[in-house]
Amino acid sequence: MATVVAVENLNPKVLQCEYAVRGEIVIHAQRLQQQLQTQPGSLPFDEILYCNIGNPQSLGQQPVTFFREVLALCDHPSLLEKAETTSLFSADSISRAKEILATIPGRATGAYSHSQGIKGLRDAIAAGIASRDGFPANADDIFITDGASPGVHMMMQLLIRNEKDGILCPIPQYPLYSASIALHGGTLVPYYLDESTGWGLKTSDLKQQLDDARSKGIDVRALVVINPGNPTGQVLAEENQYDIVKFCQNEGLILLADEVYQENVYVADKKFNSFKKIVRSMGYGENDFPLVSYQSVSKGYYGECGKRGGYMEITGFSAPVREQIYKIASVNLCSNITGQILASLVMNPPKPGDESYAAYQAERDGILESLARRAKAIEDAFNNLEGYSCNKAEGAMYVFPQIHLPKKAIEAAKAAGKAPDAFYALRLLESTGIVVVPGSGFGQVSKSNLS
Amino acid sequence: MATVVAVENLNPKVLQCEYAVRGEIVIHAQRLQQQLQTQPGSLPFDEILYCNIGNPQSLGQQPVTFFREVLALCDHPSLLEKAETTSLFSADSISRAKEILATIPGRATGAYSHSQGIKGLRDAIAAGIASRDGFPANADDIFITDGASPGVHMMMQLLIRNEKDGILCPIPQYPLYSASIALHGGTLVPYYLDESTGWGLKTSDLKQQLDDARSKGIDVRALVVINPGNPTGQVLAEENQYDIVKFCQNEGLILLADEVYQENVYVADKKFNSFKKIVRSMGYGENDFPLVSYQSVSKGYYGECGKRGGYMEITGFSAPVREQIYKIASVNLCSNITGQILASLVMNPPKPGDESYAAYQAERDGILESLARRAKAIEDAFNNLEGYSCNKAEGAMYVFPQIHLPKKAIEAAKAAGKAPDAFYALRLLESTGIVVVPGSGFGQVSKSNLS
Repeated sequence: MATVVAVENLNPKVLQCEYAVRGEIVIHAQRLQQQLQTQPGSLPFDEILYCNIGNPQSLGQQPVTFFREVLALCDHPSLLEKAETTSLFSADSISRAKEILATIPGRATGAYSHSQGIKGLRDAIAAGIASRDGFPANADDIFITDGASPGVHMMMQLLIRNEKDGILCPIPQYPLYSASIALHGGTLVPYYLDESTGWGLKTSDLKQQLDDARSKGIDVRALVVINPGNPTGQVLAEENQYDIVKFCQNEGLILLADEVYQENVYVADKKFNSFKKIVRSMGYGENDFPLVSYQSVSKGYYGECGKRGGYMEITGFSAPVREQIYKIASVNLCSNITGQILASLVMNPPKPGDESYAAYQAERDGILESLARRAKAIEDAFNNLEGYSCNKAEGAMYVFPQIHLPKKAIEAAKAAGKAPDAFYALRLLESTGIVVVPGSGFGQVSKSNLS
Repeated sequence: MATVVAVENLNPKVLQCEYAVRGEIVIHAQRLQQQLQTQPGSLPFDEILYCNIGNPQSLGQQPVTFFREVLALCDHPSLLEKAETTSLFSADSISRAKEILATIPGRATGAYSHSQGIKGLRDAIAAGIASRDGFPANADDIFITDGASPGVHMMMQLLIRNEKDGILCPIPQYPLYSASIALHGGTLVPYYLDESTGWGLKTSDLKQQLDDARSKGIDVRALVVINPGNPTGQVLAEENQYDIVKFCQNEGLILLADEVYQENVYVADKKFNSFKKIVRSMGYGENDFPLVSYQSVSKGYYGECGKRGGYMEITGFSAPVREQIYKIASVNLCSNITGQILASLVMNPPKPGDESYAAYQAERDGILESLARRAKAIEDAFNNLEGYSCNKAEGAMYVFPQIHLPKKAIEAAKAAGKAPDAFYALRLLESTGIVVVPGSGFGQVSKSNLS
């Protein structure tokens, strides 16, 4: 059997791929969790606290009632014919479910949909984008996906021909990008966010990294920007966004804008601007600038990670290229309909005047205020801890502190054959049950590493 | 912009990939559907009938009530605390939803789960497999996926290193396999199902194709078997399955068993046997024979395509290889929880004594009888039509008729630059609104082609 399938004869791209947020430390945490179940009291803590990934409902965040009402009604539409339903569900969740079902051919929430997603739901998403940005959006540009990740994979699959194709990615970066580039056999071209200026992004650094990659024969195809930042929590300033767009235009790069934290801004002096809005404000039209914008139901105040809903909005690509994107989407048939419905809901939540609006608003604001409070609390806690420093948590759901470990800890890590920050994270887990991701897992280097 | 992203500078693997069941004819059908909406009466038919893919709920099949009750309750768990719920939902759907929620950490159906799926749901699936086969199954061997397709992609990604890696696939085949192999840059090694013996599979033909591929330097890694057959509708005989397992064992091949139609057998003299059962019956244990078995909530009597639920059961792989499979799964975080719950339900439906059992049984049998009746009707219709012949529809959801087109039709097709069967399918669509897939889209060759 060993010769039939062994690590030695697997796809080397798979072997090279790393995905720190679900890697060694998380696997160890799952083992400890099982130990807690079979031998309660055998560890110095009673539960595992998973802070390795933005997964708010696993930490007790409650889903927004209106969204779940609509999902339940769409899952079991015969409820809509029962008298008791009106006392169990809000009036606007009932009318919204009816509207949604009316846009689904045959009201069949159990049927494969169009591979880009149900047209009526894409219309709702496009309307939400237009109202957010003040510029029109088109349902034909929307690809609804199972969370944002499949959309990222699709674009990497489309653009990467071989190891000479490069994608500019921020460091530190959400490791989906390095993992997806590795799986598709391309080259990650790093650009470094500047910790000393609150994870600033300078186009002069972009230019230097780009030229350096080009001098090595790398064909750099696209620039990934994560705004608000994952895992660094910064929010881009508007002028900075204009510079980035100009840079892409001058250099012939596609802009891949990861905007899944668009609702998560915690400071008064910063505001989320979509790159679509920036690009249109600069006068570029539908065919002038290749842009992919990602959104997900997993983040924001909704936090519906398990529902796997999201979309990418694709503008500035020619019809023949779009056909190829559609083909890739079609090989997976369609994304899940529950996630599709939820994606339409987060982009079109209850409005003033709707029965649910007050409750929705209270839930939404409560969650966002709690996230902001906790972001500030953890930022302050780190900055008051010896050997730690931490930038302002402006947005997203993460902070990326710098830790100065004592020499002996670094030596102990070396002796154990681990990176110092990975060693620290393992010891933190074993002592407290708290799961974090070492900075090296995000590609962060030396000095500003967790070391 | 053309130089930034154009068809010429896309990944050639994407360009080469074809996916006939959602290809040119379906795209044309979608255009006609829009035309019917904007200009009713402008075509010789009033609706499009999509027969290009097994999508039963799009053709009016109703979902099983019990499944949808449980999904609605899990989507909106606060229903479980309301008195009215007991009059709206069956008692066992309520108790099942409570059981399921109890296995989900924090009852959080909106949280990312373990990348293989929620452990309690995998336990339920393993119990269902064990009860189906009479051999034990292990939750650790189950990877719950968004339908069966992502599991197929995962295995292709794992096994294919370059174009010298081959996968043996039946012809005609469900084009997911050719598409996935093309996207991952491998070689499809065809073996031909024999139309004259009811789409029989001979291991002597397998051997010949394998040797032929090996003589060309292809490292053949795995054998794909689709049982019941897609698109050919045959059901493998037990002895044939033993031969296939022996063949894989002798030749050092992984067996990829697509068993998503396991509930769809329409003839009294045939019975579905899982390859897991066959392999265990032959005395191979957990570590002796590398087997991947695929199941989906999209098919059977459930037909829940839009919910994107399914699983693969992986046995006979070493721990280091399984770690790599887990890593690929983890890069996509997890499959959607609604689909995960549904996968556990179809493998553990209501039992005699449960309140829902009688209704469930009536719905299930009604759907399966209707599918069997329609399979027979369409088989008979084709065999009574001039120029058509059609094998028995033993299982799955398809028939693959042979059509003899007149010379003039073939000439007209040539003049239009189309394969004769594709030309026929387009004309059928334009005359009737019925969407079918030309046999050439399944890789079928010359004589037994739709030509």
